[in-house]
Amino acid sequence: MTMPAGSSGGLCRFRIDLAYDGTDFAGWAKQPGLRTVQGVLEQALSQIFGDDEDGFGLRVAGRTDAGVHASHQVCHIDLNPQQLKRMGRTPLGAKRLNGLLPQDVRVLEVSEAPDGFDARFSATGRSYQFTIADAECPPDPKRARYVLEVPKSLDEKLMARAGKSLIGLKDFGAFCKPREGATTIRSLRKLAVKRGSSGEIVISLEADAFCHNMVRAIVGSLIAVGEKRLTVEELTTIQVEAKRTSKFKVVEPKGLTLSAISYPKDADLANQAEKARNKRSAAEISV
Amino acid sequence: MTMPAGSSGGLCRFRIDLAYDGTDFAGWAKQPGLRTVQGVLEQALSQIFGDDEDGFGLRVAGRTDAGVHASHQVCHIDLNPQQLKRMGRTPLGAKRLNGLLPQDVRVLEVSEAPDGFDARFSATGRSYQFTIADAECPPDPKRARYVLEVPKSLDEKLMARAGKSLIGLKDFGAFCKPREGATTIRSLRKLAVKRGSSGEIVISLEADAFCHNMVRAIVGSLIAVGEKRLTVEELTTIQVEAKRTSKFKVVEPKGLTLSAISYPKDADLANQAEKARNKRSAAEISV
Repeated sequence: MTMPAGSSGGLCRFRIDLAYDGTDFAGWAKQPGLRTVQGVLEQALSQIFGDDEDGFGLRVAGRTDAGVHASHQVCHIDLNPQQLKRMGRTPLGAKRLNGLLPQDVRVLEVSEAPDGFDARFSATGRSYQFTIADAECPPDPKRARYVLEVPKSLDEKLMARAGKSLIGLKDFGAFCKPREGATTIRSLRKLAVKRGSSGEIVISLEADAFCHNMVRAIVGSLIAVGEKRLTVEELTTIQVEAKRTSKFKVVEPKGLTLSAISYPKDADLANQAEKARNKRSAAEISV
Repeated sequence: MTMPAGSSGGLCRFRIDLAYDGTDFAGWAKQPGLRTVQGVLEQALSQIFGDDEDGFGLRVAGRTDAGVHASHQVCHIDLNPQQLKRMGRTPLGAKRLNGLLPQDVRVLEVSEAPDGFDARFSATGRSYQFTIADAECPPDPKRARYVLEVPKSLDEKLMARAGKSLIGLKDFGAFCKPREGATTIRSLRKLAVKRGSSGEIVISLEADAFCHNMVRAIVGSLIAVGEKRLTVEELTTIQVEAKRTSKFKVVEPKGLTLSAISYPKDADLANQAEKARNKRSAAEISV
């Protein structure tokens, strides 16, 4: 049992690892009248613990947009002693929650959070995958919800080279919507482009955090390179200039999947949360 | 260009290979007021060729039920000279049809049919796959539309052994709804059960043809074996007695995918069609 840092005490924090098919959701974040992942998760929790005004203090590592999928997302909730009593003898496991959730959301694991854990602020990295079916890829209707169809043939080797040039601690202003007082500097640790055995092109990215729409803008730029509308050198110049451009588009979300959240060792969780919280409140960058 | 056997002449037969996600379809066969694969395909064809009273003589190899998917289905259409003129200069290729079809149906290939070809009556075999996610399998919301969830752990080795015992030219009366004057004898050529690297159990079957619901009844019986509610020996006895039983259930369709249709060499197509047609009209077995 954990006392979350900064709570008024008596609360117990649980980490929830989950996956979802984003197709039929208006994104993660709760919105009145819309079907969201947060909404259906809170509803399932309410069935066990009763209603909670603060939505069980639910906080998520990656606030995914409408249509974006997750193969591995992480969030946490805080339960008070009364709620813990209502839990009864059956532990709050994946099975119990999955019985209350729709099939397009599946809980992978529920665990008591270690000291200092915060799903959002302790996270040190976010990984995404973007999947494209180009003209080389045989059509597969079962993949229609999960891949972006590009009618032309893409040169995935050029795309991989372009992707490599973007890796590093850089200003990604060319790929982010500018926001007052917010930095667009990010540490992009990984950007790999590979064509799988099915013919689909998979773009794998990892960063400390991504600005809003940053992955989809990067993918748009790589598609422009793959279609030979943009050279690797032109893309590098755009990146360095760090200004929005009309040379590529932010692609639609359906090929996008949040695939992993990284956390430091347990002993460093609270430290990392403190660091991230300060950085966020100073710059309010979106994660 | 082909003169289909038995046609009044002047018609040109095209073979269409296609795939679909069956989730949002009320099956293959056209039904008034319902969304069916045949319905959306005829609608796409009408956009090129104009309306056709006889639905372009569309005939399919495997009339899949509501919710059943196809990774490889085959059908044919017959076009008359006026319709061929309307086709214009662009050939009737997969790309052209896919531009007119919803994303959950994809045409894989369109080709002029060889002499004597009939998508249904020339077929010598149908292959299906049934995919199960049991308690051993990590939950995956992206697979929810394509797998049957079984809450218990299944013994896939026992299921494989049970499956093997069903292979052969046998009376599958225990797995078929009885129909007046219809035979329930089928040649089951393959029945393999394997757990894949993802943890899903895949049951692969091939037969000359399947009775209605036969695959889903066989899968139900294998699940009973996998859960150890039924022994391999008991299943063999049930099969030999060839009578409907309450020992297992016909499972729901969503784990089921039609995966291949086999045809003989071109020279034998007409012969096979003649044979199958006679057999069907004598016994009217469902394929």
